Amino acid sequence: MQTLSQFQDLFYKYLAENQFDYSPKELYEPVRYIMNLGGKRMRPLLALMAHAVFDDDIEKSMPAAFAVEVFHNFTLVHDDIMDVAPLRRGKPTIHEHFSQNHAILCGDVMMIYAYHYLNQTADKSLVGELFTLFNKTAIEVCEGQQNDMNFETRDNVSIEEYLKMIEYKTAVLLGCALQMGARVGGGSKEDARHLYEFGRNVGLAFQMQDDLLDTYGDPEKFGKKVGGDIVQNKKTYLVLRAMQSDDEKSKKELKDWLKIVTVTPTAEEEKIEKVREIFDRLEVKAAAEELKNSYQKTAFEHLAAVDAPEERKAVLRATAESLLVREV
Amino acid sequence: MQTLSQFQDLFYKYLAENQFDYSPKELYEPVRYIMNLGGKRMRPLLALMAHAVFDDDIEKSMPAAFAVEVFHNFTLVHDDIMDVAPLRRGKPTIHEHFSQNHAILCGDVMMIYAYHYLNQTADKSLVGELFTLFNKTAIEVCEGQQNDMNFETRDNVSIEEYLKMIEYKTAVLLGCALQMGARVGGGSKEDARHLYEFGRNVGLAFQMQDDLLDTYGDPEKFGKKVGGDIVQNKKTYLVLRAMQSDDEKSKKELKDWLKIVTVTPTAEEEKIEKVREIFDRLEVKAAAEELKNSYQKTAFEHLAAVDAPEERKAVLRATAESLLVREV
Repeated sequence: MQTLSQFQDLFYKYLAENQFDYSPKELYEPVRYIMNLGGKRMRPLLALMAHAVFDDDIEKSMPAAFAVEVFHNFTLVHDDIMDVAPLRRGKPTIHEHFSQNHAILCGDVMMIYAYHYLNQTADKSLVGELFTLFNKTAIEVCEGQQNDMNFETRDNVSIEEYLKMIEYKTAVLLGCALQMGARVGGGSKEDARHLYEFGRNVGLAFQMQDDLLDTYGDPEKFGKKVGGDIVQNKKTYLVLRAMQSDDEKSKKELKDWLKIVTVTPTAEEEKIEKVREIFDRLEVKAAAEELKNSYQKTAFEHLAAVDAPEERKAVLRATAESLLVREV
Repeated sequence: MQTLSQFQDLFYKYLAENQFDYSPKELYEPVRYIMNLGGKRMRPLLALMAHAVFDDDIEKSMPAAFAVEVFHNFTLVHDDIMDVAPLRRGKPTIHEHFSQNHAILCGDVMMIYAYHYLNQTADKSLVGELFTLFNKTAIEVCEGQQNDMNFETRDNVSIEEYLKMIEYKTAVLLGCALQMGARVGGGSKEDARHLYEFGRNVGLAFQMQDDLLDTYGDPEKFGKKVGGDIVQNKKTYLVLRAMQSDDEKSKKELKDWLKIVTVTPTAEEEKIEKVREIFDRLEVKAAAEELKNSYQKTAFEHLAAVDAPEERKAVLRATAESLLVREV
């Protein structure tokens, strides 16, 4: 059986060989900075693993896998400008470390390089199909980001809209990476589609888990500050689900809390505690867990439906399980 | 003979049918705004004209032509943020009219749509080649923009660097449009390359003309304020050429003027007049005209070398002449 670390080794070797060592340095230094900032590299690894379900020559999928990673990092650079985020992976964001103009232009050139790498795929008969999928996905990612920004100032976001937003903003790119790897690896369109749905549902389950961990996670294990979503009045699934309740009194209470901007740590703690109490009363935690489990179940059904020996799918299964295992 | 207006009609029909009428509206309204702001539409028209040199079914080149126009408008949106420009074609820029975040994301999605349209080219055997050319060009456009920004704070810009910058920032996209149209129209690689060089040299000649008009143009005819480059201390060809002179006294004078930030109209007028005097002394106007003419000559040599009947090239020749005819 292939192991995660074999795929990681291949990816990091390719990354080391593709370091954007071009001029002008003012354009490419920020590109190298973000590309080497770390992260789990989940998207390219999933592409390579999807290839490996069907074929051993996984380096053939490396250009497409790398394209997805470059594209993902471009979205981080521009999203960080739009969100006025000071830090990314514990380091200053590009607009902070360099300048906003550097961040805009470095993101632009990265998006072009994503297409450049995708176009390096050796099997030219596949390039049109890969571009079509990649374009569709990239457009959805932009639409998801726009909706995420829209929701900040909207009071009437439905659960359906929220789920569509997280699907577009994060889940479809996982699906796209898997589908591309599957097709380059020689998988049928049907199997590639099952892997797309596997990735999309893993992404949705992961996002549900993230919403849950942000409110209920173990502060020792959760990377970010627990309760951050509540403090920032974010319209997470938990909030939107609570707003669907018949308990008007609790809903009113929640609405009032979500208008409050806390300025002291004590006030923050009180707000987090009170909102959690309302969530408990309205049983939204269980509802979110149920939804997460449902996405997860659908994901693994699609993986099971892929017409390939179980041992060739084992590393994908193990990787998804490790992503989704975190107990809340 | 085909006329300019026939190509324009086809382009505007396609534009009307491709209005980005999608949701979320916050994402696509700015796209429609910039795409309908006007302009000469020179790049898509050149692509269609290049197609028409070889083949009558010019609508086959429309997706590639439109891709270039969408890409060009994306660069305007992001460049306007970076340049803090309040106006574009006499109207508020997107970051002014909507917001900076709208401008960033609308530019991003436009770039993806450029690839989407390019991928609509019917002859799939050409798509890989078109993508390769388009990627290379798009990367050069970003590098040109970065160098343009770098030059603002650099004191040692060489003429060679300046010409490379304007080539990348503006000329190569004209060449790319022509080469793509030629290839989709069935032109040979050699003829398509001649048309690329035709476009690249027309672009360089046009930029030289623009530098000249900015300093020596007729205020009645020039769209922008004459002398604007001098007031803004821009390192145009005229300045860089002057700096190559042996006349150390005049160079010192010019350097001193280019350190001065004028705050009144009278001071501006004086600065423009004095700098023009130095330019006259150093004969840089004639040098710039010579360089423009040399690019123009090279451009028409490449057009002449294209293996096609003269009447099929006539509209391209007439269009280039009308772009470059403006007497300084």
